[in-house]
Amino acid sequence: MRVELISVGTELLMGNVVNTNAAYLSAQCATLGLSCLYQQVVGDNWKRLEESISFALSRTDVLILSGGLGPTEDDITKEVVAKHLDLRLVLDEETKDRIEAFFHRRKGKDISENNWKQAYIPEGAQVLKNENGTAPGIYLFQNNQHIFLLPGPPNELIPMFERECISVLKKLDLEPLYTKMVKISTIGESRAEEMIKDLIQSQENPTIAPYAKTGEVHFRVTAKAKEPGEAEEMMAPILAEMYRRFGNGIYTTKEEESLPQVVVRMLADKGYHLSCAESCTGGLFASTIVSVSGASLVFEEGLVTYSNSVKKRRLGVLPETLERYGAVSEEVVKEMAIGVRKGAKSDWGIGITGIAGPEGGNKEKPVGMVWIGLSGKNVLQTRCFYFQGNREKIRELTVIQALNLIREELIAEDETK
Amino acid sequence: MRVELISVGTELLMGNVVNTNAAYLSAQCATLGLSCLYQQVVGDNWKRLEESISFALSRTDVLILSGGLGPTEDDITKEVVAKHLDLRLVLDEETKDRIEAFFHRRKGKDISENNWKQAYIPEGAQVLKNENGTAPGIYLFQNNQHIFLLPGPPNELIPMFERECISVLKKLDLEPLYTKMVKISTIGESRAEEMIKDLIQSQENPTIAPYAKTGEVHFRVTAKAKEPGEAEEMMAPILAEMYRRFGNGIYTTKEEESLPQVVVRMLADKGYHLSCAESCTGGLFASTIVSVSGASLVFEEGLVTYSNSVKKRRLGVLPETLERYGAVSEEVVKEMAIGVRKGAKSDWGIGITGIAGPEGGNKEKPVGMVWIGLSGKNVLQTRCFYFQGNREKIRELTVIQALNLIREELIAEDETK
Repeated sequence: MRVELISVGTELLMGNVVNTNAAYLSAQCATLGLSCLYQQVVGDNWKRLEESISFALSRTDVLILSGGLGPTEDDITKEVVAKHLDLRLVLDEETKDRIEAFFHRRKGKDISENNWKQAYIPEGAQVLKNENGTAPGIYLFQNNQHIFLLPGPPNELIPMFERECISVLKKLDLEPLYTKMVKISTIGESRAEEMIKDLIQSQENPTIAPYAKTGEVHFRVTAKAKEPGEAEEMMAPILAEMYRRFGNGIYTTKEEESLPQVVVRMLADKGYHLSCAESCTGGLFASTIVSVSGASLVFEEGLVTYSNSVKKRRLGVLPETLERYGAVSEEVVKEMAIGVRKGAKSDWGIGITGIAGPEGGNKEKPVGMVWIGLSGKNVLQTRCFYFQGNREKIRELTVIQALNLIREELIAEDETK
Repeated sequence: MRVELISVGTELLMGNVVNTNAAYLSAQCATLGLSCLYQQVVGDNWKRLEESISFALSRTDVLILSGGLGPTEDDITKEVVAKHLDLRLVLDEETKDRIEAFFHRRKGKDISENNWKQAYIPEGAQVLKNENGTAPGIYLFQNNQHIFLLPGPPNELIPMFERECISVLKKLDLEPLYTKMVKISTIGESRAEEMIKDLIQSQENPTIAPYAKTGEVHFRVTAKAKEPGEAEEMMAPILAEMYRRFGNGIYTTKEEESLPQVVVRMLADKGYHLSCAESCTGGLFASTIVSVSGASLVFEEGLVTYSNSVKKRRLGVLPETLERYGAVSEEVVKEMAIGVRKGAKSDWGIGITGIAGPEGGNKEKPVGMVWIGLSGKNVLQTRCFYFQGNREKIRELTVIQALNLIREELIAEDETK
């Protein structure tokens, strides 16, 4: 079943509002097994809105309009839909009573003439209750097409969709979609896709689709199935094959789980404490760890050692090392990782030093060059990266690679046991 | 001039990603005096994408496509546009060299065959440089229509639009809009709006429009004028009136300037050094300061003192103080601010301690309660806040208020001289 969304509102076209409704409705439709093929955004303009509705009805089974149901003269969605389908607007007594009661409860607020406009609905339509506002939603079944009109404010649209629309849509003959998100933080998008190109191309159900995030690649594996158990069975061999190819590069298959969460969980499971000394990332690594609820279980202390003097004083980095190799060097990052671990008496210490730019680079040590070091009881690992991008991106990529380094070390520890 | 946006990407139709690009591009166009009349979202599907492009080109002067320029087989935007306009794809040597250099710098990363695809551009097109990725942007002028192809990731699209597209669009025959962004970080949106309601309602040119950001309110003042001098003159009395009402609450009127940048600039102007000790923000304050290029001039050192033992050891917070008042208290934040300032021998020391949640709150000290302290040569300031929102939001609001505290203190210092 094909779905199309039309979001109505000049504020969307001015960029004053981000269209979170479209993302919400699309995600809901995907979960229900409906394929959203198009989204449109159009202003509160009769001619253009009617044109958009006409396009949509020429190519979809389900049309969901949102916005433009308010009481003002600008709000014309209902009127345009009724006109386009040649339906009269008739007074809905129940809605009229509800609007009256709504204003009665908000004592002192008069009902403006405009508000009665909201009590009219296209003939033959079903009213969808609005628990957070006066505008009723509307459901129409016309010419074998399902048409929903929903209010624009998310706090009205979301409860209405969940309480009124899902039950209507579930009655349609659909096969729901089940998904897993295979998340990889060790290789780039094009390389990752190359590695499973054959799988992506040969699969129809489940399907595999790549998503690039900064420093990560996610593959969404989606199965159409009658029920969850069947979907699990269909996805199992594909997931197994992906694990065979990417190995430990996959850090989770859960949509809601992030890399920092995985690392915090792994550290907590082993009762480990972590500390860090950051130069170019300037606290972003610590902040990323602390953004995970429950980080206090594993996070000991963080030092932002931006200047050389602080590196010496707080971490015991030797003046000779700084002099001889420079602040961005393998030798210094080793001493940083060791120094912070010792000072904090923690199990693991991370050191980060690099050139985030835009200034400070040279031929030998260009902008984007970053050293990451990890010190543990019997471990001293260092890695050098040459990241591309602006200051913000270089810092974000660095944090991801520091998390990778810890994760790999914790896995290696298990494997050598 | 009519503008239409087409965002390409199945992830948008699945609801995995919110279409922030459309909001960004629409807002930029509005600023330039271009009217965005439609936005479309379509998947990586040849037939449907071509249909969308065809609709758009039948009704617009400027078409901006975003997404689908990546190296994978799914990425077809460039190919569809070229086919639709009957243009050959030709190898762009400069882009090829740039991609080669990109991979060369990332030593050890091989160039996959896919990546070369990105070096081909429609004949006659102009390449738009991408500073954060391999995909070049493309600008075409065909049949009196302006067509832009931009990469989907916001960290590639935004710098490209600002550095490459705005200059092209500004050459079109538009009545340009000139804007100032009045940025306030000390009061909430509804209060700020209430304070200048009369100004907002009475203005037609320039106009005033509010934008709420986390912890900030921005008012965009926009004048239509033939040239910058005229616009300045039109805006001057309104800006003066806003300064009269908001006073020092306005931290800048420059669109491109952020609160951290202002604070770093103010510290640098006075030759001051800053250090910080963070508990609930976990490095986010330091990271925000360090995100400003040139922060090394003013930022001495940062400590993330998440546990009580680290607060004692690194900052000299007294065990009795922690015992008697608890870690989230005025007394502890004072000792943190003093401790970090002394330890770092810096001019200013910031201390932050609070309950970011979701756990850890109680009736007396609820989630969202945060103490911020500032220690200077003759200054010891503390403030307590009760923030609303989730963990992330509480941390962000805390950082903004810490920046406010420093900024106000530096202004007060000037005023008492």
